[in-house]
Amino acid sequence: MKAIQFKKFGIDNLELAEVTTPQPGPYDVLVKIEAVSLNYLDIALVNGIYKPNLALPATPVADGAGVVAAVGSAVTKWKVGDRVTSHYVQQWQQGPNSPETNVWRTGVTTPGLLSEYVVQPEYALVHTPDNLTSVEASTLPIAGLISWTALIDQAAIKPGHVVLTQGTGGASLFALQIALAAGARVIATTGSPQKVEKLKQLGAHEVINYKEYPEWQEEVRRLTNGEGVHATIDVAGSATINNSVKSVRYYGYVASIGFLSGTQLPLDLLSLVYSYVRVQGLSGGSLQSFREFTAAIQTNNIKPVVDTIFPFDAAQEAFKYVLSGNHFGKVVIEVK
Amino acid sequence: MKAIQFKKFGIDNLELAEVTTPQPGPYDVLVKIEAVSLNYLDIALVNGIYKPNLALPATPVADGAGVVAAVGSAVTKWKVGDRVTSHYVQQWQQGPNSPETNVWRTGVTTPGLLSEYVVQPEYALVHTPDNLTSVEASTLPIAGLISWTALIDQAAIKPGHVVLTQGTGGASLFALQIALAAGARVIATTGSPQKVEKLKQLGAHEVINYKEYPEWQEEVRRLTNGEGVHATIDVAGSATINNSVKSVRYYGYVASIGFLSGTQLPLDLLSLVYSYVRVQGLSGGSLQSFREFTAAIQTNNIKPVVDTIFPFDAAQEAFKYVLSGNHFGKVVIEVK
Amino acid sequence: MKAIQFKKFGIDNLELAEVTTPQPGPYDVLVKIEAVSLNYLDIALVNGIYKPNLALPATPVADGAGVVAAVGSAVTKWKVGDRVTSHYVQQWQQGPNSPETNVWRTGVTTPGLLSEYVVQPEYALVHTPDNLTSVEASTLPIAGLISWTALIDQAAIKPGHVVLTQGTGGASLFALQIALAAGARVIATTGSPQKVEKLKQLGAHEVINYKEYPEWQEEVRRLTNGEGVHATIDVAGSATINNSVKSVRYYGYVASIGFLSGTQLPLDLLSLVYSYVRVQGLSGGSLQSFREFTAAIQTNNIKPVVDTIFPFDAAQEAFKYVLSGNHFGKVVIEVK
Amino acid sequence: MKAIQFKKFGIDNLELAEVTTPQPGPYDVLVKIEAVSLNYLDIALVNGIYKPNLALPATPVADGAGVVAAVGSAVTKWKVGDRVTSHYVQQWQQGPNSPETNVWRTGVTTPGLLSEYVVQPEYALVHTPDNLTSVEASTLPIAGLISWTALIDQAAIKPGHVVLTQGTGGASLFALQIALAAGARVIATTGSPQKVEKLKQLGAHEVINYKEYPEWQEEVRRLTNGEGVHATIDVAGSATINNSVKSVRYYGYVASIGFLSGTQLPLDLLSLVYSYVRVQGLSGGSLQSFREFTAAIQTNNIKPVVDTIFPFDAAQEAFKYVLSGNHFGKVVIEVK
Repeated sequence: MKAIQFKKFGIDNLELAEVTTPQPGPYDVLVKIEAVSLNYLDIALVNGIYKPNLALPATPVADGAGVVAAVGSAVTKWKVGDRVTSHYVQQWQQGPNSPETNVWRTGVTTPGLLSEYVVQPEYALVHTPDNLTSVEASTLPIAGLISWTALIDQAAIKPGHVVLTQGTGGASLFALQIALAAGARVIATTGSPQKVEKLKQLGAHEVINYKEYPEWQEEVRRLTNGEGVHATIDVAGSATINNSVKSVRYYGYVASIGFLSGTQLPLDLLSLVYSYVRVQGLSGGSLQSFREFTAAIQTNNIKPVVDTIFPFDAAQEAFKYVLSGNHFGKVVIEVK
Repeated sequence: MKAIQFKKFGIDNLELAEVTTPQPGPYDVLVKIEAVSLNYLDIALVNGIYKPNLALPATPVADGAGVVAAVGSAVTKWKVGDRVTSHYVQQWQQGPNSPETNVWRTGVTTPGLLSEYVVQPEYALVHTPDNLTSVEASTLPIAGLISWTALIDQAAIKPGHVVLTQGTGGASLFALQIALAAGARVIATTGSPQKVEKLKQLGAHEVINYKEYPEWQEEVRRLTNGEGVHATIDVAGSATINNSVKSVRYYGYVASIGFLSGTQLPLDLLSLVYSYVRVQGLSGGSLQSFREFTAAIQTNNIKPVVDTIFPFDAAQEAFKYVLSGNHFGKVVIEVK
Repeated sequence: MKAIQFKKFGIDNLELAEVTTPQPGPYDVLVKIEAVSLNYLDIALVNGIYKPNLALPATPVADGAGVVAAVGSAVTKWKVGDRVTSHYVQQWQQGPNSPETNVWRTGVTTPGLLSEYVVQPEYALVHTPDNLTSVEASTLPIAGLISWTALIDQAAIKPGHVVLTQGTGGASLFALQIALAAGARVIATTGSPQKVEKLKQLGAHEVINYKEYPEWQEEVRRLTNGEGVHATIDVAGSATINNSVKSVRYYGYVASIGFLSGTQLPLDLLSLVYSYVRVQGLSGGSLQSFREFTAAIQTNNIKPVVDTIFPFDAAQEAFKYVLSGNHFGKVVIEVK
Repeated sequence: MKAIQFKKFGIDNLELAEVTTPQPGPYDVLVKIEAVSLNYLDIALVNGIYKPNLALPATPVADGAGVVAAVGSAVTKWKVGDRVTSHYVQQWQQGPNSPETNVWRTGVTTPGLLSEYVVQPEYALVHTPDNLTSVEASTLPIAGLISWTALIDQAAIKPGHVVLTQGTGGASLFALQIALAAGARVIATTGSPQKVEKLKQLGAHEVINYKEYPEWQEEVRRLTNGEGVHATIDVAGSATINNSVKSVRYYGYVASIGFLSGTQLPLDLLSLVYSYVRVQGLSGGSLQSFREFTAAIQTNNIKPVVDTIFPFDAAQEAFKYVLSGNHFGKVVIEVK
């Protein structure tokens, strides 16, 4: 079968290779991959910035969807032909994650999905929602599930609550769609006038251009009678976390999930303490949450926002495009 | 001013009377009532079935909406002209109710609202949502807030969850609308083929005619892959509670809010124990929940279902119509 | 090896037999059993009242503790010599139970533990707390874990809360000890003057003799300034559930875990609805809860109350003694 | 009556003055103060570091306890002779705080308690627990209630959980005592060998001398099998918050309540994100929580740790002693 591999770190080293098709063990499933979506994590892995003890050559990419091609002898949950989407933190089945259940992460400490076939444990897959193609479903496992976990499981967003989404990356657009499905009012931010329109088309009630309002948290408070929003997901880290903290109301929830702008930040304790704000670190979700998320996708016919679909042999271009940061939603590679 | 009063118990004794306009104390608000909605509670009160130490003659009705006509000297929350809706358990501001905060209930242990003007404490009102008329808003305080409290505050319904609503009374239709706003899938029941269509128009994903399926809980389970729903609100009591318990999934939530069919029931403990079911009694909600509910109404443009609007001088007819049980949604009396 | 078996239903048919020692599969652990404790469940099983598709001859008993004698080739969690206690709902690892995880229950749908050696899956064991013998630890899996799940996971008892325990069966005495460890005030009931003293020695703040106060819920309310307790565990079912409901305060929690006095009950809906009471069915707990429970046992040096220890060859006497209902705490059979 | 006042900012300006005894309004209570306890807040106020629009001369101090001397005409909750303790965020009755309920804070935006008599609204008092003197009870309102709110209401500490307390200030010693009452295991830190012993006498299971272990979070992890604790209260801010974050386990809870060592901190986002840590700002608790806290104090006979009791005329010395930072527990001024 064919797979994309890298023998040395660096996007330029990604290349199509002919490799042996893996065989499922008794509790495993062989999945014919149809699409994968990219996260910054995949780039950090390929570039050797994030090094989880990887043996090279390796096949990258954490998120994907496809069809069950074969099942191990003891598998009861799946049959050939089932449409499936991969689960990232494989042994995190329900409840809180733990160091023990955090070990096996698809495409990081297990083989990646940018390949015609992959083997996954039977417990590390969910049914692809009926209303999604594999291209769409491939975007769910990391970006979608983190936003779901933050807003629904942790912030417990109710109808009528106000949610702030930041920018137009995959997690933020999922946050927007999830918040709307939950009946919330959504304020979105972006730095681009064209994206303002796109965000409104997706359903954002208000959009703030942060180039126009560099202190955008003040505009957020103005739009909420001075109170602030119930929850936001901070995706940039150092550069934005204090704005995030100042954007939320008393007992507001700030999920911190990214740190592209830096991992050390001068958090303003006064805002935190006097407004009773919760800052919650987060880097994934459980299989049980993923199942609930896919039920929500189906009930509410949520369509993930796919920016561009690259062909299988254009993996390098796809990775570079994500790095450019110009996308609106997720970048997908179709495997066919 | 004019008010509807009863000097003796019985709907036939409701009559229009000329009474003194009440004057607000320092912390009170005088409200010009525009509409009230009826609950079985009001009927039980007028008929003397429910006797909370009432001095006759009395003016009935717990739920209403109108406009602030005057404010007491110490009032800071309201000004003349504000559109307001009454709060039922007046001193229940937030958190759980208590015997202490349960004492003053509008129209039960305080004067009722079927009157041109009423005095309410400033803390026992909410802003009428911008998207509702007073007729529509008058339906919210009891039927709406109980369903909100049950599904959102207690059952914590998430997008993709499945909610079962029972019949077409006010609370059940609110449950349907609230569940949809929260992104849930809704299965509704009714005994009338015409109402099946109306329920679908309101957004119910599936409707079960319980005359066709007397053991409707089995149909509910069939529609949910044998699992059952996440939550339901039982409105009838004895006749239905076991069906309700058998309709929900493991850890399912059954709110018990009514007992028209009887107050003693042969609850089947086996279903309860082996399916980890929660049966939760409930008879109201807090002001804080009411505020969140009205925010949700506005964000999601929820329009309460009003069956019939009676004029002020047709109070007897309105009460009798509610007793007939044929309504689809709430029955309102316009005060003008 | 030796095991107690029954070839026909009935306690009198329990007999010591020589059987083949089971061999662990790759993910299994062979446990040398040192003690088992009895639950009504075991009696119902042996007497054929509860029939979970059992092939006879069968070895009964759900709860036990011992020492790891051998491990399967793929086992990583355990090594020979580890002191272990069995987990009842084997695949219920964390979060809520489900029909899927409810299938394999030790000693009910898998071989029972009244045997010199048993095979358990590696995920269906916990470390025996350091402060307990195997005799003491054998009492934990059902009676202890249900009370823990009810009071700690569900009722979320805090220091200063008031808990009502009913009678002197295993679950109720665990409830007493767990509530005390959590800093709660405990009111206990019993029908025997001698047991009043024993309950006080265990730390009960107040004890009510229900023969003296047949309407004991009134005494409970008197002892709590008329408010009622925060939580209680109803163990008898029909005969007591209304007293239980009337014993708790607004938003009080009633766990329903047993039905010796009947499975159909005339639940008084008025109390439930107007006092916002929660009645919660419950029949087990998760492995994660069991781990937390054993940590609590160790931190607080909780010593389970063992009424009588029977020798291995006196299984019939042990079962009959439990049936007599005269025990104070748990009945154990030592396997040696 | 006599009161301590300052006409200009500065501890040296605190002086005993003869002032008019205040009179309670209809909903107020006149309290004969018997003791007050000091918080850094009081020092910041007197020193003019924290300036909440204060009109001078002013009487300082937020926390106190005494006896009801007179009640307003409409007061129903209290009678002359009742032993009472003050509530800090006066209108925060239950549920979450809000800017609206945060306005009136005893001794900050209302007159302070370092006075023979004070007037409090009837809703801003709790019953002094029977097992405490007024000296002891005066320590509860800020330091005690914050630790209660953090560990019990927010972190939901269960028996067997592990709590880390930092240093020997008032809030930290309350945290230790509350955690023990809740059945938790407590690891405490201090920089002084003498205080190690005192902490063990209070019940700490382990004590770490942070001068011996400057990277004390590593010792915390070693003592918890590498896992970290369930919850800690960070009292110093900049200098310690990263150690705090690294001391807790997956999903661990870090309350941030102080910032003596600085208000801007280089929070390490990686630890936060990959360990799913919650950092929660906090500066008070509700009246409802305070009532639950006092019930817990009484049920568990918790005795607040009082370091020194100063006489009424030694207010300057008391304030300076707190500033020195050498105390173990709370510093109290007896008013008599």
